[in-house]
Amino acid sequence: MPGPAAIYTFLGPQGTFTEAALMQVPGAAEATRVPASNVNAALDMVRDGSVHAAMVPIENSVEGGVTATLDAIAGGPELRITREVLVPISFVLVARPGMALADIRRISTHGHAWAQCRLWVETNIPGAEYVPGSSTAAAALGLLADGAHYDAAICAPIVAQEQPGLSVLAENIGDNPGAVTRFIMVSRPGELPQRTGADKTTVVVPLPEDRPGALMEILDQFATRGVNLSRIESRPTGQYLGHYFFSIDADGHVQDARVADALAGLHRISPATRFLGSYGRADAQKVVVAPHTSDEAFHAAHQWVDGILQPRPGLPETAS
Amino acid sequence: MPGPAAIYTFLGPQGTFTEAALMQVPGAAEATRVPASNVNAALDMVRDGSVHAAMVPIENSVEGGVTATLDAIAGGPELRITREVLVPISFVLVARPGMALADIRRISTHGHAWAQCRLWVETNIPGAEYVPGSSTAAAALGLLADGAHYDAAICAPIVAQEQPGLSVLAENIGDNPGAVTRFIMVSRPGELPQRTGADKTTVVVPLPEDRPGALMEILDQFATRGVNLSRIESRPTGQYLGHYFFSIDADGHVQDARVADALAGLHRISPATRFLGSYGRADAQKVVVAPHTSDEAFHAAHQWVDGILQPRPGLPETAS
Amino acid sequence: MPGPAAIYTFLGPQGTFTEAALMQVPGAAEATRVPASNVNAALDMVRDGSVHAAMVPIENSVEGGVTATLDAIAGGPELRITREVLVPISFVLVARPGMALADIRRISTHGHAWAQCRLWVETNIPGAEYVPGSSTAAAALGLLADGAHYDAAICAPIVAQEQPGLSVLAENIGDNPGAVTRFIMVSRPGELPQRTGADKTTVVVPLPEDRPGALMEILDQFATRGVNLSRIESRPTGQYLGHYFFSIDADGHVQDARVADALAGLHRISPATRFLGSYGRADAQKVVVAPHTSDEAFHAAHQWVDGILQPRPGLPETAS
Amino acid sequence: MPGPAAIYTFLGPQGTFTEAALMQVPGAAEATRVPASNVNAALDMVRDGSVHAAMVPIENSVEGGVTATLDAIAGGPELRITREVLVPISFVLVARPGMALADIRRISTHGHAWAQCRLWVETNIPGAEYVPGSSTAAAALGLLADGAHYDAAICAPIVAQEQPGLSVLAENIGDNPGAVTRFIMVSRPGELPQRTGADKTTVVVPLPEDRPGALMEILDQFATRGVNLSRIESRPTGQYLGHYFFSIDADGHVQDARVADALAGLHRISPATRFLGSYGRADAQKVVVAPHTSDEAFHAAHQWVDGILQPRPGLPETAS
Repeated sequence: MPGPAAIYTFLGPQGTFTEAALMQVPGAAEATRVPASNVNAALDMVRDGSVHAAMVPIENSVEGGVTATLDAIAGGPELRITREVLVPISFVLVARPGMALADIRRISTHGHAWAQCRLWVETNIPGAEYVPGSSTAAAALGLLADGAHYDAAICAPIVAQEQPGLSVLAENIGDNPGAVTRFIMVSRPGELPQRTGADKTTVVVPLPEDRPGALMEILDQFATRGVNLSRIESRPTGQYLGHYFFSIDADGHVQDARVADALAGLHRISPATRFLGSYGRADAQKVVVAPHTSDEAFHAAHQWVDGILQPRPGLPETAS
Repeated sequence: MPGPAAIYTFLGPQGTFTEAALMQVPGAAEATRVPASNVNAALDMVRDGSVHAAMVPIENSVEGGVTATLDAIAGGPELRITREVLVPISFVLVARPGMALADIRRISTHGHAWAQCRLWVETNIPGAEYVPGSSTAAAALGLLADGAHYDAAICAPIVAQEQPGLSVLAENIGDNPGAVTRFIMVSRPGELPQRTGADKTTVVVPLPEDRPGALMEILDQFATRGVNLSRIESRPTGQYLGHYFFSIDADGHVQDARVADALAGLHRISPATRFLGSYGRADAQKVVVAPHTSDEAFHAAHQWVDGILQPRPGLPETAS
Repeated sequence: MPGPAAIYTFLGPQGTFTEAALMQVPGAAEATRVPASNVNAALDMVRDGSVHAAMVPIENSVEGGVTATLDAIAGGPELRITREVLVPISFVLVARPGMALADIRRISTHGHAWAQCRLWVETNIPGAEYVPGSSTAAAALGLLADGAHYDAAICAPIVAQEQPGLSVLAENIGDNPGAVTRFIMVSRPGELPQRTGADKTTVVVPLPEDRPGALMEILDQFATRGVNLSRIESRPTGQYLGHYFFSIDADGHVQDARVADALAGLHRISPATRFLGSYGRADAQKVVVAPHTSDEAFHAAHQWVDGILQPRPGLPETAS
Repeated sequence: MPGPAAIYTFLGPQGTFTEAALMQVPGAAEATRVPASNVNAALDMVRDGSVHAAMVPIENSVEGGVTATLDAIAGGPELRITREVLVPISFVLVARPGMALADIRRISTHGHAWAQCRLWVETNIPGAEYVPGSSTAAAALGLLADGAHYDAAICAPIVAQEQPGLSVLAENIGDNPGAVTRFIMVSRPGELPQRTGADKTTVVVPLPEDRPGALMEILDQFATRGVNLSRIESRPTGQYLGHYFFSIDADGHVQDARVADALAGLHRISPATRFLGSYGRADAQKVVVAPHTSDEAFHAAHQWVDGILQPRPGLPETAS
């Protein structure tokens, strides 16, 4: 765990939900925080050692997986997820002072934010045109630039609070009031985060092509050991249509015997399986483990097999 | 099948790969073609009967599923996929005449196109800044507008060919030379496309929450009947993290007994399962069917069970 | 259901547990009861119409499946199980009057009975020699014949009660006090017994040889439809080592949609699957059915698929 | 492996097929061979050390599993199967000299032999009565005793050859000309037989009662690791109807990583699982192993997981 002199990066610019996620990490408020222009740039800073860790979004309850992150951590030099952070997502509509809703013709924001506020916009500003933005914060700040070619922006409340010159026209404009985005903290491989009993393990498993039913085989590695999955996403490898890898979150820590055993099974089926980390669940919900998938059951099973493979000496084999 | 007086919509503007996909449909060249500003708008035109069908992208071999399409056809009034079209994707870099590579600072294009050309740009125009565009074609056309705030655009070759005033600075700049995008033609429910023996069936299956292992149960409905899957994607329902539906392409036509039986199984497990259509495969590759999953085997099995349920009359039951 | 003028056969001779099972059938006490010398003979009388039904043992809680019955109903002209009867098994040791335990050197009984009393005999009459008998009743009656070459017999209490000239030396000598034998009533195919909600279905499934994993496929036909199995036994087909059929009891009636559907699945995998009947459970224990495997769920699923296959007419397909 | 001074027991009396099986074991012809009156007696001699090993039948291609053996090795102090032997079964009909087929009214033999010759007897000696015998050899020898109450016996050819005073009336009277019986050699636990690549492993697995679907879970332990089963039999535990254990032969040796891993899985699911031995197949047929279930694949998988659990030291975690 990086100390107070840590340097972090995050998917910028300042004022995004990602920075809000980073601020939840103990010590991050006092640490150096370097915004990155995109997920790859953030992870490259981790890989080359110029920062201790990066905070990036991985999944949104409305928009789904953040494909840039899923793809970026699936390839290249190995990285490890050491923490997850959940941030409730709420959006505000901002404009330059003096603008009224009725004046708005063009709205800019990030595509994901636009998708999450589309119904509100259709209802309240019918006919408004969408102008793509590289981030919610960039869209908001762009309003202050000369020659802004749009009238309003959708962004996080924090931006409107901290940035003078922006007026909030509407709050909580997200179509789904319970929207949450999940962020991950990514470091270079090192010590595993401590096992807490409320852990998650993330893996990337390329789908083997030489066998039909390989996806069921993959899922079975977890199911047969009582390991529940909380997320599964398919992503193209980019080689051709129909060639996938799966990004999977499983309940439990690799130090849990059932998870370690499942990972060994995955490696056999798909040797390029990548371990992305075991880390505490943001909701701290303990994993319920059936007796026959407990550490004790695995330990007893292996002792039993070892006893078969290495018979105790001294047992006479011959007739007396 | 719409005739020569058909009206089609497609994800516009003109000059996108989607229009190229539509042009592959017999008769589309002579038909009326209406660009739509986004996938929802295109599907709404189908739903309200103002067009016969819409062509929209669903999957890219590099970027993965087109989430806007996956989500739009999964909800709302039912629609049907009647055709798939594959379009090889190649990108060109365009600018106003007189620009050289060395002059370029800011490049606009659609986010998916940017992702597919990122390595080329990093290598050939290091430091170039990305300006999000609403489509590849819009980015290209934007160069011709007054006050364009970027210097070059990445778009389809067809735009550069048809649009005067654009100069091609580089061709085939996609990082993955074999990139393909898959498009689907979407209509209102009607007659099923003819069974060809080389068919695909698309379904949307919400993951039941009341049972662990439900995903394996879903996959098993296909596996136990010898139905291969060519695509599976999870999408959030938007209700909360971890609540998914699956968008699945399976080999075969719903008129194949094994597919119809698998669909019945899905409906039992997840009653909100949605059928999105059976249609010919773009690659026309025949599906290989094992004897025990053939129409004949299903027919024989049901005849056998019917014979048990309705014993033939006339068999004397009593002792003589 | 045979009436009062019914003729039954049973695995004889009189006084066996099988006759006790037959006597549990309503009306059997007044009906004609013909003992058969072996299971095949009993079933042949059913097949040729000379009796209405046969009562034969199928399974013992200690000794396991009665292979003669399992094999006899698996082949030949089709028969149907219409009822099951459970009989608690208790054994007595009988001898001619005047004999004491200490005098006994040789004991006769049926092999299954011997196996179930072996520990008692070893403890109480150490060194006693076993003389195979063709049935427990025959062994007992043989004691009364001239030249009996054994001293005592193990038989059902009923024999000792009804047969003068036999003295009971010990009661309840079975090693397992809870021993139960299960008997089945077998008829020619006719009307199915009424569905009660507490039913059992028996099938014979030859293991297909052309596919590995066929046994799991067979079991999966039940599991995927929520049908529990209460008995599964492998029997050799007699062709060569490793060629099996499985005799299976499943919860539910073939008129339950989930059972009918499972049977259709079995027939596809193993076309020589034989249906041996659906009939009320002796313990009248209702089967608990999950909502997604109820008749309603199957009915709804098939209606849904039918609606896909036969689209309602009148839905306009063309643009207005 | 017992040497030339070995003492063996076998299911007697002399002249049975079991002794023929024992004679196939190298060195057995010169060793001491003690007949046992039943399977339990034979195994008890092994357990108490009075013999080195016992030869007992376990499975017949026509009659199925030898339940006495299956049950006897499933309980009590642990034993190990060290070898299997296959013996083709052929039967002869013997009588005292001077008897003709037409004179025969009563025939004695072991029940299993009777079952295998029933059709021949029905065709050639219609109406013949069956007299149970404790073994085929005992039935034959009984003909020579005073007061024999039957006229002929069915036994192995070897008995007729070696025993003066018996006349062969008919040869090869078995209904199934390819009948084979499989015998096993049983010792006390000791060194495992050498792995040959053409091995078999036998286990006894009590069916856990606390979980539905436990049988599929058991089978899946083998299937998920590519281990084929050549025999599976259910046996009642004797406690109550529906409480079973399974006796299973799997391809491979416990020293094969996939078999050891499957055994560990069985032990977790059913902790009372019993290992009965790994030994060379009688047919010496090599097991074909898929790459992802090879020893190498298991080894690589465990090394990979170990690397995750014990990160290499020296990898700097902090930013430079």
